[in-house]
Amino acid sequence: MATALDSNFYAIIPAGGVGSRLWPLSRADEPKFLHDLAGTGNSLLVDTWNRLTPIAGNNIVVVCGVAHKATVTEELPQLNAVDLILEPSPKDSTAAIALAAAVLVRRNPDAIIGSFAADHVIADDRRFGNAVREAIATALAGYIVTIGIRPTEPSTAFGYIETGAALAIDGAPHARSVSKFVEKPKLDVAIDYVDGDRHLWNAGMFIARASVLLDELRTHRPDVAEPVEAIADAWDSPERDETVARLWPTIPKVAIDYAIAEPAAEAGKLAVIPGEFHWDDIGDFAALARLHNHGRANVLVTLGENTRVLNEGASGLVVSQTSRLISVVGVKDIVIVDTPDALLVTNSTNAQRVKSIVESIRAMGADDVL
Amino acid sequence: MATALDSNFYAIIPAGGVGSRLWPLSRADEPKFLHDLAGTGNSLLVDTWNRLTPIAGNNIVVVCGVAHKATVTEELPQLNAVDLILEPSPKDSTAAIALAAAVLVRRNPDAIIGSFAADHVIADDRRFGNAVREAIATALAGYIVTIGIRPTEPSTAFGYIETGAALAIDGAPHARSVSKFVEKPKLDVAIDYVDGDRHLWNAGMFIARASVLLDELRTHRPDVAEPVEAIADAWDSPERDETVARLWPTIPKVAIDYAIAEPAAEAGKLAVIPGEFHWDDIGDFAALARLHNHGRANVLVTLGENTRVLNEGASGLVVSQTSRLISVVGVKDIVIVDTPDALLVTNSTNAQRVKSIVESIRAMGADDVL
Repeated sequence: MATALDSNFYAIIPAGGVGSRLWPLSRADEPKFLHDLAGTGNSLLVDTWNRLTPIAGNNIVVVCGVAHKATVTEELPQLNAVDLILEPSPKDSTAAIALAAAVLVRRNPDAIIGSFAADHVIADDRRFGNAVREAIATALAGYIVTIGIRPTEPSTAFGYIETGAALAIDGAPHARSVSKFVEKPKLDVAIDYVDGDRHLWNAGMFIARASVLLDELRTHRPDVAEPVEAIADAWDSPERDETVARLWPTIPKVAIDYAIAEPAAEAGKLAVIPGEFHWDDIGDFAALARLHNHGRANVLVTLGENTRVLNEGASGLVVSQTSRLISVVGVKDIVIVDTPDALLVTNSTNAQRVKSIVESIRAMGADDVL
Repeated sequence: MATALDSNFYAIIPAGGVGSRLWPLSRADEPKFLHDLAGTGNSLLVDTWNRLTPIAGNNIVVVCGVAHKATVTEELPQLNAVDLILEPSPKDSTAAIALAAAVLVRRNPDAIIGSFAADHVIADDRRFGNAVREAIATALAGYIVTIGIRPTEPSTAFGYIETGAALAIDGAPHARSVSKFVEKPKLDVAIDYVDGDRHLWNAGMFIARASVLLDELRTHRPDVAEPVEAIADAWDSPERDETVARLWPTIPKVAIDYAIAEPAAEAGKLAVIPGEFHWDDIGDFAALARLHNHGRANVLVTLGENTRVLNEGASGLVVSQTSRLISVVGVKDIVIVDTPDALLVTNSTNAQRVKSIVESIRAMGADDVL
């Protein structure tokens, strides 16, 4: 191991987000993080937990919606009740992470937190662990730290982090400052990024002293910080429920990238550790197909427990949650998702458009299949 | 009407053939002719019956497999038991039509028969009727007569009839001799056929005096004619079942095109009436899509009673026999056939390959979905 375990380190797993682009596999009551998308035999949530225990031990806090309490505790029987933070309603990543940080800093003023989404795929746990350890060392030096993934292709589906100067931090030889965050680019820009070797994918992983993170939030978004701190004050007390019920609805929805990371980068307070491991947020079915075809674009990937698929010259992805016989004839790059009450047929090129189908379904009032 | 109804005319409707290329819509126990593919509200079988009654009155005989007796009589409650000929096993079109002709000629030696498949679509019943009346007049002059469809495009899915000299037949101003039958051609050949104006589509409709048809069969295929005649001798007697059981299995399987029409054409005994109406045998899902998109290649045709389809920029065909929500995103020219136990996804280009899927399913022993 690169550095010893820091007992002040706490991993936060925000388990939010339905994964609309993965409908009809992902549903409101069975979101993306509950599915075994990586083919490990475990849900992405359990994979995330298992990836973090070598680094954080039992110091793992899960933040999820009240609707998913039962399934999350079923997936993670080892999770202590005190380490499960339930959101009454979704308020995006800033509220989830800040509340966890605020609760933890009250339990341990030296807490260092690291936030890792419940529904991402990482292939190399050892390299991931090394990056997190460098990030912890950098956080101890006072930075807010992100882990940016070394791009393997000019993806237009991810945001990018532009790296700046190397930082001289003990235990973090690869730490650099962050010049700025860049939104999902056009292809030609993405190609320049990959060629230029200064840009990393923004994987949404943030590591910081809890107190530093909350100070930044208070500076840039007091409208989020104030109710979050007030809720945290009441969290480990009999006033929790009343305070949550009163203040949670007032919290603005904002992603942590906008609320904290971007202003911190501008202020020179953001550092980045390059992650030299395979990472994917499996944002749509095209990404899911790529994850499983191992670069062979001409195969038909089939996922599902009782999958009966007959392939006659087709390629792409079949996800089956039924026992129906699925015959796929001649179509290339197809995406078929077969569930008991809903069927999706699209292809890789159009995989991002699935989100708008979900909006159409909501508009037509067919919420039973969402 | 072009000519008065000839009371010696009998329509034969061979209701055979599963329609493998329309799997999983067509099944062994629910073949193509039982489906409402034309969107008329009736099965193709009932459409065929309704098209023939203005010409043949009650003189309509249906030939079908024993397995379909119940469904056929349910579809056609007006069909007299004496006019339903049940095949113990499928023996292709020659046996079916010849047996019906042989039974009918024993009941009426002057019988003229006309054979019309149970699972074709015809758009203009009046023009169809006119062609049949000309065919009857030509059959009365001693010819075996086919109705050939004027091609509207250089189809490579149909066989063609090369027409010869005009025949001078009373009541059949458009009758011509047939030079020869041509198998499904390559596209460049088909283009020449359409440009040349001498070729018609072979729609498998045959009209002849029953005695003439059976004489031809006896000449060219005595191996079919002999058992068929022997069965017909016993048909309206107590010996029917025993004779059928003994002789039917010995009958060779052969299409009437090969057994009778081609040799009759060579012998100058075949005539053709050009059919100036829209006809389609709906041989595959591409044909079914074309039938319903009315030339608008960019629409998504949806067929099915409780169809719930959400279309986001897709085109092609969705056939739904379930109440599932089907979302189709961005894929062009797609074919989706959704049934309770089997799903097919292909596209128009590959629609003909569905037949081989059915063979694969049989090979893998999944006969439950055939």
